[in-house]
Amino acid sequence: MSTFNLVVRNARVATAADTFSADIGIQAGRIVQLGHGLAKGAREIDAAGRVVTPGGVDAHCHLDQPMAPPVRMADDFDTGTRAAACGGTTTVIPFAAQEKGQSLRAAVADYHQRAEGKAHVDYAFHLIVSDPTPQVLEEELPALIREGYTSFKIYMTYDDLKLGDGQILDVLAVARQHGAMAMIHAENADCIEWLTKRLEAAGRTAPRFHAHSRPMLVEREATHRAIALAELVDVPILIVHVSGREAVEQIRWARAHGLSIFAETCPQYLFLTAADLGLDDSYLGARCVCSPPPRDKSNQEVIWAGLNDGLFTVFSSDHAPFRYDDPQGKKPGGEEVAFRHIPNGIPGIETRMPLLYSEGVLGGRMTLNRFVELTATNPAKTYGLHPRKGTIAVGSDADLVVWDEREFVLSNHHLHHNVDYTPYAGQRLRAWPGLTLIGGEVVWDGKDFHPRAGRGRFLTCETPSILPRRAGVAA
Amino acid sequence: MSTFNLVVRNARVATAADTFSADIGIQAGRIVQLGHGLAKGAREIDAAGRVVTPGGVDAHCHLDQPMAPPVRMADDFDTGTRAAACGGTTTVIPFAAQEKGQSLRAAVADYHQRAEGKAHVDYAFHLIVSDPTPQVLEEELPALIREGYTSFKIYMTYDDLKLGDGQILDVLAVARQHGAMAMIHAENADCIEWLTKRLEAAGRTAPRFHAHSRPMLVEREATHRAIALAELVDVPILIVHVSGREAVEQIRWARAHGLSIFAETCPQYLFLTAADLGLDDSYLGARCVCSPPPRDKSNQEVIWAGLNDGLFTVFSSDHAPFRYDDPQGKKPGGEEVAFRHIPNGIPGIETRMPLLYSEGVLGGRMTLNRFVELTATNPAKTYGLHPRKGTIAVGSDADLVVWDEREFVLSNHHLHHNVDYTPYAGQRLRAWPGLTLIGGEVVWDGKDFHPRAGRGRFLTCETPSILPRRAGVAA
Amino acid sequence: MSTFNLVVRNARVATAADTFSADIGIQAGRIVQLGHGLAKGAREIDAAGRVVTPGGVDAHCHLDQPMAPPVRMADDFDTGTRAAACGGTTTVIPFAAQEKGQSLRAAVADYHQRAEGKAHVDYAFHLIVSDPTPQVLEEELPALIREGYTSFKIYMTYDDLKLGDGQILDVLAVARQHGAMAMIHAENADCIEWLTKRLEAAGRTAPRFHAHSRPMLVEREATHRAIALAELVDVPILIVHVSGREAVEQIRWARAHGLSIFAETCPQYLFLTAADLGLDDSYLGARCVCSPPPRDKSNQEVIWAGLNDGLFTVFSSDHAPFRYDDPQGKKPGGEEVAFRHIPNGIPGIETRMPLLYSEGVLGGRMTLNRFVELTATNPAKTYGLHPRKGTIAVGSDADLVVWDEREFVLSNHHLHHNVDYTPYAGQRLRAWPGLTLIGGEVVWDGKDFHPRAGRGRFLTCETPSILPRRAGVAA
Amino acid sequence: MSTFNLVVRNARVATAADTFSADIGIQAGRIVQLGHGLAKGAREIDAAGRVVTPGGVDAHCHLDQPMAPPVRMADDFDTGTRAAACGGTTTVIPFAAQEKGQSLRAAVADYHQRAEGKAHVDYAFHLIVSDPTPQVLEEELPALIREGYTSFKIYMTYDDLKLGDGQILDVLAVARQHGAMAMIHAENADCIEWLTKRLEAAGRTAPRFHAHSRPMLVEREATHRAIALAELVDVPILIVHVSGREAVEQIRWARAHGLSIFAETCPQYLFLTAADLGLDDSYLGARCVCSPPPRDKSNQEVIWAGLNDGLFTVFSSDHAPFRYDDPQGKKPGGEEVAFRHIPNGIPGIETRMPLLYSEGVLGGRMTLNRFVELTATNPAKTYGLHPRKGTIAVGSDADLVVWDEREFVLSNHHLHHNVDYTPYAGQRLRAWPGLTLIGGEVVWDGKDFHPRAGRGRFLTCETPSILPRRAGVAA
Repeated sequence: MSTFNLVVRNARVATAADTFSADIGIQAGRIVQLGHGLAKGAREIDAAGRVVTPGGVDAHCHLDQPMAPPVRMADDFDTGTRAAACGGTTTVIPFAAQEKGQSLRAAVADYHQRAEGKAHVDYAFHLIVSDPTPQVLEEELPALIREGYTSFKIYMTYDDLKLGDGQILDVLAVARQHGAMAMIHAENADCIEWLTKRLEAAGRTAPRFHAHSRPMLVEREATHRAIALAELVDVPILIVHVSGREAVEQIRWARAHGLSIFAETCPQYLFLTAADLGLDDSYLGARCVCSPPPRDKSNQEVIWAGLNDGLFTVFSSDHAPFRYDDPQGKKPGGEEVAFRHIPNGIPGIETRMPLLYSEGVLGGRMTLNRFVELTATNPAKTYGLHPRKGTIAVGSDADLVVWDEREFVLSNHHLHHNVDYTPYAGQRLRAWPGLTLIGGEVVWDGKDFHPRAGRGRFLTCETPSILPRRAGVAA
Repeated sequence: MSTFNLVVRNARVATAADTFSADIGIQAGRIVQLGHGLAKGAREIDAAGRVVTPGGVDAHCHLDQPMAPPVRMADDFDTGTRAAACGGTTTVIPFAAQEKGQSLRAAVADYHQRAEGKAHVDYAFHLIVSDPTPQVLEEELPALIREGYTSFKIYMTYDDLKLGDGQILDVLAVARQHGAMAMIHAENADCIEWLTKRLEAAGRTAPRFHAHSRPMLVEREATHRAIALAELVDVPILIVHVSGREAVEQIRWARAHGLSIFAETCPQYLFLTAADLGLDDSYLGARCVCSPPPRDKSNQEVIWAGLNDGLFTVFSSDHAPFRYDDPQGKKPGGEEVAFRHIPNGIPGIETRMPLLYSEGVLGGRMTLNRFVELTATNPAKTYGLHPRKGTIAVGSDADLVVWDEREFVLSNHHLHHNVDYTPYAGQRLRAWPGLTLIGGEVVWDGKDFHPRAGRGRFLTCETPSILPRRAGVAA
Repeated sequence: MSTFNLVVRNARVATAADTFSADIGIQAGRIVQLGHGLAKGAREIDAAGRVVTPGGVDAHCHLDQPMAPPVRMADDFDTGTRAAACGGTTTVIPFAAQEKGQSLRAAVADYHQRAEGKAHVDYAFHLIVSDPTPQVLEEELPALIREGYTSFKIYMTYDDLKLGDGQILDVLAVARQHGAMAMIHAENADCIEWLTKRLEAAGRTAPRFHAHSRPMLVEREATHRAIALAELVDVPILIVHVSGREAVEQIRWARAHGLSIFAETCPQYLFLTAADLGLDDSYLGARCVCSPPPRDKSNQEVIWAGLNDGLFTVFSSDHAPFRYDDPQGKKPGGEEVAFRHIPNGIPGIETRMPLLYSEGVLGGRMTLNRFVELTATNPAKTYGLHPRKGTIAVGSDADLVVWDEREFVLSNHHLHHNVDYTPYAGQRLRAWPGLTLIGGEVVWDGKDFHPRAGRGRFLTCETPSILPRRAGVAA
Repeated sequence: MSTFNLVVRNARVATAADTFSADIGIQAGRIVQLGHGLAKGAREIDAAGRVVTPGGVDAHCHLDQPMAPPVRMADDFDTGTRAAACGGTTTVIPFAAQEKGQSLRAAVADYHQRAEGKAHVDYAFHLIVSDPTPQVLEEELPALIREGYTSFKIYMTYDDLKLGDGQILDVLAVARQHGAMAMIHAENADCIEWLTKRLEAAGRTAPRFHAHSRPMLVEREATHRAIALAELVDVPILIVHVSGREAVEQIRWARAHGLSIFAETCPQYLFLTAADLGLDDSYLGARCVCSPPPRDKSNQEVIWAGLNDGLFTVFSSDHAPFRYDDPQGKKPGGEEVAFRHIPNGIPGIETRMPLLYSEGVLGGRMTLNRFVELTATNPAKTYGLHPRKGTIAVGSDADLVVWDEREFVLSNHHLHHNVDYTPYAGQRLRAWPGLTLIGGEVVWDGKDFHPRAGRGRFLTCETPSILPRRAGVAA
């Protein structure tokens, strides 16, 4: 009688530190042994020397998040996590977003209902704090942090979400006191509004002007401000979806001054440019409208350099799914609208891992270990899910990706999301997950998705472990 | 009949990426399994939940290196590697130094003789290139790189070792073409000589004036120059023993500009200051004469920050052992001499790991994983010894340290080197290796050293794996 | 019959460019000749080889500006300009401050009434825009700029004055379109309020905590933001009263990136430190409460360096006069109050020139020409008063200072303002104006002040001439 | 009987500080009065409201400097200063160059012979120190400084001129002790030689490869090194002919750190690019071979920004005249040679002032005052000739340029040098000197050159006055 439910044989195992050949012994959904010549398992999979990485942790994605009508996100927990799994991501951390006037508890309860029974991969929640009332600051947030919601996002832009500097300080003070990780969307709201009005007054409302309304300095200013606020409170923060040179320079400055400023970037800043929003006034560019907008080729190089040298801690998708040709999507009410009204966001939950593996690892731009660190280990550490998630180690969940290295040209029909396009169509890929395992079960075999009711479990998060205790968030 | 020669039970295993609880199954000197409930070994050690890290890789230490008479290094491969082992270091990479006029081959052959049969830990060699003749550049160096000597050191100071900028370019071009890693000692020789003469003319020859003769700008200038030379050749380099703010700023600048500039620092820049060279003209400060000299407290913080945020890749000892009260040591010929004539260097091979574990990990200044990365994994990757060395992974050598966490005040009598002092005497430590294993054998048990003739083996080095192939040194 | 009303003989004339010996021939209040052997004047003054500089232009001072009761400024145009004249300043540019809800026109009209007939030196007005309504932006401001009010100040802090980022962009766009110079008080209001509340909650309300409530990062953040807003609009701005290292670093960054960011500093950042706000909870420190607060000695050196190397364009007093022991002053209603309620500002209109001449020029920290540039020529150019004001040149107003170089210890009884203290009491000075001439008339003779009804005239300002036309504000 | 030899009426006088309308009264070669309604002069010139600036001071030009045969400079003191005068330059400071082995005295004596009786404009000498023997350092240099040779140039490249770092320190120490100004040509000699050999080995010897052999990092490195050496000695230096972004960044860094690092740039870095050295292997590019080489358009913008914001102190020509189609010039021995052998340098002594006046002042890139400061006042202050030279002030030499503003396309036939080309042929100019006066005599009237035997006088230099006494070079 075997002690292993499953043994993955002949794996070329990669962690954030090491690459080695081993069998992986799995029992009750966890990795229990790594080694040569493991005993036979109840089930066996032969990796045949292929690279096996930890399943991806997508720490920035939006699923079934309530939007102002008529807009709706195209992916709920069913389709969104299906796409995640097929793309090698086995844990997602979407956002339970507080509406102004709403209690955080209510937002969390609502979001649990949306996820419950529908998720195909494991999931935790970030909170979005849009209304930091005394009730929220003094009671709800501390309690929720204790209960395993240890990260939250602060917006510096978007009218319905943005906080003022004083509110940000209040929220950061809670993060400091209770050991949570604050994520910050750093763009200056007033600048965007001012530019948008000027562009509109000049009749410049095509999708491509979205990029004109949010130049890099808008992101740079807010990044500097976020850093200053964090410095004042003396608390680590993570700047999400950094797009290019100017914000990067601020973050480098902060780190050189000893501040614990973390940063995330996303595939759109490596593989898209502002030209993808259109060179003329065609509406097709609406498909690539997201914030911050993609920049130019030279900024892509800045992002690659930052991924390689440790500036970036996390590589996420910022998946925000809206169908293009849809009255609930990029054409709200069925209309081609001014850029201000185009729902912000692009799909990417399924392509995040293969794009980086293809261009980063196989393209010679980063080590395999750094790929694992950025896509799995660091996200898990940053948000308190490590070592359960994000690595291949004894005791960790058996969330694994076996990589098939083969060239093909990406098309949206390859994908499993509920969006009618991918911004990366036409991209030549060199690899795709040949197998995705979650808790030792195969959910994707390279061809077919294998759903099982109730597979995705809610995860409570610990205190972030990306920093030493003293320097970072409290125990 | 057991498949394991040894099982280390109940280890709290730390790698550069992860920390997990497991048994470690060892066979023929290698780790073959990691997991829960491993089969019984021929021998068993109970780690009892203590932290187990990879044995340290000290990538910068000097042992039995020929010096100008009457000076001699106090440690040869016997005493030096004994001290290493007792301090948790299981691999050393000292220097086969070419003398001007000598062939590199001869230097390597001579150095093998010095090591052969005496080393208690495994060892590889860096080369020191002091005379880059066409013969060296075109034949010896390429051949030696192919044979496993894949790193070499370039000096920008010291009359008998220093290379001019043109020579450095020649040597770096070889590194680029053949995939070696160049280490650079960056101090401006002319500035040091100029200041030294002025100090001497003013009668300022006490040991403390050594620090005056090598201010930070001397290191900053040479660091900038080394970076520029590497940029010209388009090759990664590693700046050794970075001492403080000014050199750090140059390295940050280089990395922000996308250059692959690696950096090393050492315990003396965390735990000593220039005051340790003396506040008056006492000769005792000669014990802490090393180059670059220690700086001040604020620079210690700069170094800590750089260790934590990824600026530094490697943490080495720069062990250069000279006895204080010795005619072959700090008092050459038995004399108290002008600082110019004091042998440069301090002992530290045994204290490197415990100092950083105590103040870094247990002092809350860095994560345990970062400690492993700096002291073992990265040095092994940087010099082509990974994954055989520098990690705890299936297939790696069973070089392990089990840590005893206990407070005590360090004294030289605790140490096993052949030096009559330690600069760190009086330092409160919080931990020391309770066990050091090399290839699965216990060489230090927390009390006693267990030598075995011929244990230390020579290691050939692969191409560095710290960088992705394309960006870094060639395959 | 002489053509000169007055000839100043044997002057050692200093301009922003040159120093030369000459007689100065004056007619109808203007300099009409400079040279050797000028014809005899109706009146003659022998400068006897002493240094003669242009009368100072104090481009940042507050006189009789309406305050919230019970607080009143101690100096009106009578006492304030009397003090100015006795300290070598012959032109002042105080602020016509719009109250929220008030029209700018009304503010200007009111301020004219306050000045009319009372000013002893010539004066222009900056505007303070606190309520940028469409009426203000589209009509009042453009009209006022055309009429000679070509500069205005924007506050990023103070509840009754501060503008949001969007408002600042609106106002800067007017500056750009109509060729005005915007001055910005850069401190982050929310940070100050947040810190103040925390300090108050901890009972830390003594004057010295004023400095704790406005650390340098509060100024740095707002400076970076102001730069970004100016960059967005593509318009020059001037950051007022820069206090130290962190704001300076931002300004250097901006200039290195080709932005036209000007900067001003003040005597308090050269001669005071935060310690002058008190080391214990004594209320005496209230005398030095101003914003930004003075920093420390090392920051004084940063300011000196910036004055010397061209970072700073203007050296102003920021004279904001409140009596210390007064219910209308630093003890509002007669009370010692929490720092939040202490009127912000210190007197300095009379000491600005002698302090900088003494420590800067005679202390060997700056050239005499740079002194003239900072205190007179550049302020006049920056605000459109040059060449009428700010220099000694043919055609310029005969506003002159003849310097007496003599050492004495400053005491408040030397001064002519209506304030009961000077923060610089006890400072050793090396010089003081021996003569101040305005329009060729002696108003201060080194001992006595010589008022004449209606001497001070209102000056309309041209477009700033500190920048070439194309690069700067429009013609 | 008039007191004035000459009155220039109705001048629009510009100094580094001011612009004003005045008559200029001249007596015995000096300006003795400036004003309205000056008495009638023996001679009168009506400037008719045109701009009158100080005659230019060209602080970096090479005339009749001995070269290795067969190469000879095309301009001696006769033709070179004739060209200078016709282009509005009235003072030149060429170089008395020490050959290795030669005494400085001998070099100076020889150079006086070359100038004596041939110069049409006033002249001083910089020294070039190529062999800092004890004799030079301890005797000759101090004596020459006392005698009025207060500046010297140090080369970091060129085999026959370059000094090692230790020699540079020695020479800088003399500058510090005796109050001289050191100019530094900052390029790394070893890098250039290394690249040149590689290019030659690859057959890349056409003129355009000159630019490849001296990339910006070669200049950046040497600039950083020069700054460090000056910092060590604590002495101001001036970096000559700064070409672009990378060196500029180093100089900004130094100034932000409080170091007195001055900088010069030249027309070639504003008006030429590397493309002027050729896009194919044509030899025509030899005409633009100079060091450092011109960079690209974006670097021109960096230089303009530095001129405008005070980074650059001096704007010189670096006139180094070699005929193109000449066996003594760019075709040594009559041959088209490999770039290494092309004489380095381009002509520019006559075009320096008109180019900057046209594009800078009339093109809206700099104020008229800044133009005067860069081309005349600052060079005179930097090298101890102010206020005799470099300004229009009472007591200064009557060296004046009256500007004719008119558009034309430059051609070499307009020029008066002895070179058979100008690199600026085809450039559209907007102005040219309509009159040049030296010591009150017209030497150029817009059409004709008016020589007078022995007009040019040798000038001894004072201690530099660009810095306050304490901070700078000693009295």
